Amino acid sequence: MKDSITALRALQKQLYAYRYAEALISYDEAAVAPPESEAGRAEASEVFARLSFDALVNPGTAALLAQAGQDAEDAQQAAEVRELRRAYDRICRIPAEEYAAFSKLVAQAMPAWGRAKRGNDFAAFAPYLEQIVAAKRRQAACIDPARDPYEVWLDQYEPGLTVARCDAFFAALRTAIVPLLAEIQKRGAPIRTDFITQDWPLAQQKELSRRAMALWGLDPAHTVLGESEHPFTDSLYSGDVRMTTHYHPTDATVSLYSVLHEGGHALYDAHVDPALDYTVLQGGASMSIHESQSRLFENCVGRSRAFVHCLWPTLKELFPAQLADVTEEEWYRAVNRAEPGPIRTEADELTYPLHIMVRYELEKALLHGELAVRDLPAAWNAKYQQTLGLTPPDDAHGVLQDMHWAGGDIGYFPSYALGSAYAAQAMDDIRKTLDVDACVARGDLAPLRAELEKRLWRYGCLKTPDELIGSLCGGAFDPQHYIGYLTRKYTALYAL
Amino acid sequence: MKDSITALRALQKQLYAYRYAEALISYDEAAVAPPESEAGRAEASEVFARLSFDALVNPGTAALLAQAGQDAEDAQQAAEVRELRRAYDRICRIPAEEYAAFSKLVAQAMPAWGRAKRGNDFAAFAPYLEQIVAAKRRQAACIDPARDPYEVWLDQYEPGLTVARCDAFFAALRTAIVPLLAEIQKRGAPIRTDFITQDWPLAQQKELSRRAMALWGLDPAHTVLGESEHPFTDSLYSGDVRMTTHYHPTDATVSLYSVLHEGGHALYDAHVDPALDYTVLQGGASMSIHESQSRLFENCVGRSRAFVHCLWPTLKELFPAQLADVTEEEWYRAVNRAEPGPIRTEADELTYPLHIMVRYELEKALLHGELAVRDLPAAWNAKYQQTLGLTPPDDAHGVLQDMHWAGGDIGYFPSYALGSAYAAQAMDDIRKTLDVDACVARGDLAPLRAELEKRLWRYGCLKTPDELIGSLCGGAFDPQHYIGYLTRKYTALYAL
Repeated sequence: MKDSITALRALQKQLYAYRYAEALISYDEAAVAPPESEAGRAEASEVFARLSFDALVNPGTAALLAQAGQDAEDAQQAAEVRELRRAYDRICRIPAEEYAAFSKLVAQAMPAWGRAKRGNDFAAFAPYLEQIVAAKRRQAACIDPARDPYEVWLDQYEPGLTVARCDAFFAALRTAIVPLLAEIQKRGAPIRTDFITQDWPLAQQKELSRRAMALWGLDPAHTVLGESEHPFTDSLYSGDVRMTTHYHPTDATVSLYSVLHEGGHALYDAHVDPALDYTVLQGGASMSIHESQSRLFENCVGRSRAFVHCLWPTLKELFPAQLADVTEEEWYRAVNRAEPGPIRTEADELTYPLHIMVRYELEKALLHGELAVRDLPAAWNAKYQQTLGLTPPDDAHGVLQDMHWAGGDIGYFPSYALGSAYAAQAMDDIRKTLDVDACVARGDLAPLRAELEKRLWRYGCLKTPDELIGSLCGGAFDPQHYIGYLTRKYTALYAL
Repeated sequence: MKDSITALRALQKQLYAYRYAEALISYDEAAVAPPESEAGRAEASEVFARLSFDALVNPGTAALLAQAGQDAEDAQQAAEVRELRRAYDRICRIPAEEYAAFSKLVAQAMPAWGRAKRGNDFAAFAPYLEQIVAAKRRQAACIDPARDPYEVWLDQYEPGLTVARCDAFFAALRTAIVPLLAEIQKRGAPIRTDFITQDWPLAQQKELSRRAMALWGLDPAHTVLGESEHPFTDSLYSGDVRMTTHYHPTDATVSLYSVLHEGGHALYDAHVDPALDYTVLQGGASMSIHESQSRLFENCVGRSRAFVHCLWPTLKELFPAQLADVTEEEWYRAVNRAEPGPIRTEADELTYPLHIMVRYELEKALLHGELAVRDLPAAWNAKYQQTLGLTPPDDAHGVLQDMHWAGGDIGYFPSYALGSAYAAQAMDDIRKTLDVDACVARGDLAPLRAELEKRLWRYGCLKTPDELIGSLCGGAFDPQHYIGYLTRKYTALYAL
């Protein structure tokens, strides 16, 4: 190995340690830490942000990257240079002080958001969000002053993504979904849902999580499931994956589908080639590709008729009283009902992209300076009325429901809808050679995991997102697979 | 504030962030992380150990400390210089590579110890312990080649402590305790213990933990209680204190007294003056002083007749069936029975120091090169037979029971016995002006907390350990207070 590559590996090991600390701090904050511990966390986070910034952005790194670019002897080394250069380019134009201060701001904003959501008090969170929006606008101007500031951030989460591509994608979705939803509401066959809201004991819900994770094939030696306000997944390295869920005592489907969703993220993280551990190639390739795996397991598998058949004996065993007069078919239809509601994470597959559209339009307006944070709750409610035909009962179930903006993630939401679209296309392609439903129905997910590992998981960031989308989907991205999937599924479900 | 002090504060903030990460990683490892996640943790720990070493030990620090020593304008600044200099002197003679490698070794040894303990397999842990002992001997020779290597480490945990002082202290204890225990075994009034081992439901044990922590006055906004193999406490800063316990389904007293013990540590950490946060003065002043607070709350308070009176209604409420035919007096006597057993953390107050003596003699022999790790289980069992009159049933309940050596802490154990002795002397002094028993009996611990905050807690490391022992105990340390306390308590309990 050339000296420059050895030096590059040492730098990556150091960046790994900072990422490890930052990821652990985030998981701890959400799932473990005492509620009022943000002051010390913010101080530590600020230091780590500054240290990782300084480790990457310094006179030596540019020269090292140039040398290593020449010295790279295999695909992995070349990819390490490519990804480090990308990380370098992303932050080198942001002043170090700004970068560190933003990390501290987010460490303070996250618990403030949690309190504001619990207390249904948007005004208490607004000052944090105002600072976050202002910082994201400032930073976008540093990164590329000539570019639409919102697009700068889209491109961070999904390299190559533009406002124009998002606009076109969402327009195509809207054209297909809105009339389909109207048809369902006008003449869809009724779906029985009376059994969803009842008393679902926590101990059995937890056992259901355990069984679901086992069905997904998640290794308990390397995966933990915690509880947090908002479910999420992160990995410290391929051998340590952290998931969370949120149990609702009166609706077991909420946590179940959170676990199935987060389990998709966890499978991806856990199956990245361990040879990429401690390098910048570790972990998922882009946010939307990561979401493609969570949405694939949550919906394409988890809400399929085949999976409901597989899970049904477990559900009947754990909840005999709750499901005494419910049939397997009724359960399948209930967990797939299309019904506009105020909460994104509880939305069905059909209305889900509409929730994303609302966020896409609002966060774009925030970053364009066309919408002030103080006007956000009213704008949120108006968009929900216009897009989903309902007004949230309060801000806790409206503009305060998601943690993303509090975490500084503006420009992330489109990933969810794109991920769903990649997932639908990947499933169409995988079905050409694998009878997925037959495998899933008998609870054998190994063949599907093997396909996804081969197409996507093992590569980490070794290949570019564009290459991986192609290999995952079996061809160039085409949103018509997603639209076709939704149309077929809901036309059949509602006997349209 | 002079420039050198500003620079010193920046250095301390950076060291704080590393400590934060290291403490969080330790807590997570013990109470949260998936069981097989040590590989990535060891890599990250090694980097952090190296970074914190480099941050402290570099050509700039020595000059900065010299300048800051001249520029310090108040007691806090002077103490910061003193403690940083101590930290610098402690590690500057250890090679950076050795320091970082040791951190990685410990990160690997801890889970290996956990597995060895669970599997009762000392041979699986021995290679780690051999490396740890060798490293501690090498490092002691770096720190002070002229000094007894064991004493080098005693002095790290308790500045000024020597082998001679330990030998004298333990000899005095042995002289008092061994005959007292023999008297008890010969002619002590019998104590009823039949109700201890039975089925104690976990949910109620957890509620008991919550009530006990509330009685201690621990603020749930700033304290969490997790579960781990071996209970411990650590704090990330004064506003974020982490405790753990270990529930035994067949004996509720084990977790109860762990919580009372760890709660003493937690109170101390939580009451250090917040002005010391993010400096090296944050946290407890020495290991034995920290143990004085845990042992004070566990024993001098938690095992007092007054506290049993205060807790009794709670116990009867939570465990009506288990305690149906038990009286308050019987409970008091049962949780204070002196009975040699194999497990240190479950030992009564009287036999506890004997457990410490065993460890003191064995770890001294290990560091003196007089005992090989492979001979340790046999030596352990022989010492237990000789000192406590019993042989542990297996290594899991013998040499593998404590995590300290796996964590690299050799020379720590004497702190526990010293801490108990400080606690007894402090209580004697506090009782001169405060009717502790009356307060405790009515569940009002505020006056006792106020005394301890005034004498000890608020200072962190602002004063030296010697100064703090004096202010805590109300005079120079004298082990006769501890011996007197044990003698009075056990003579009365057993009607000798």
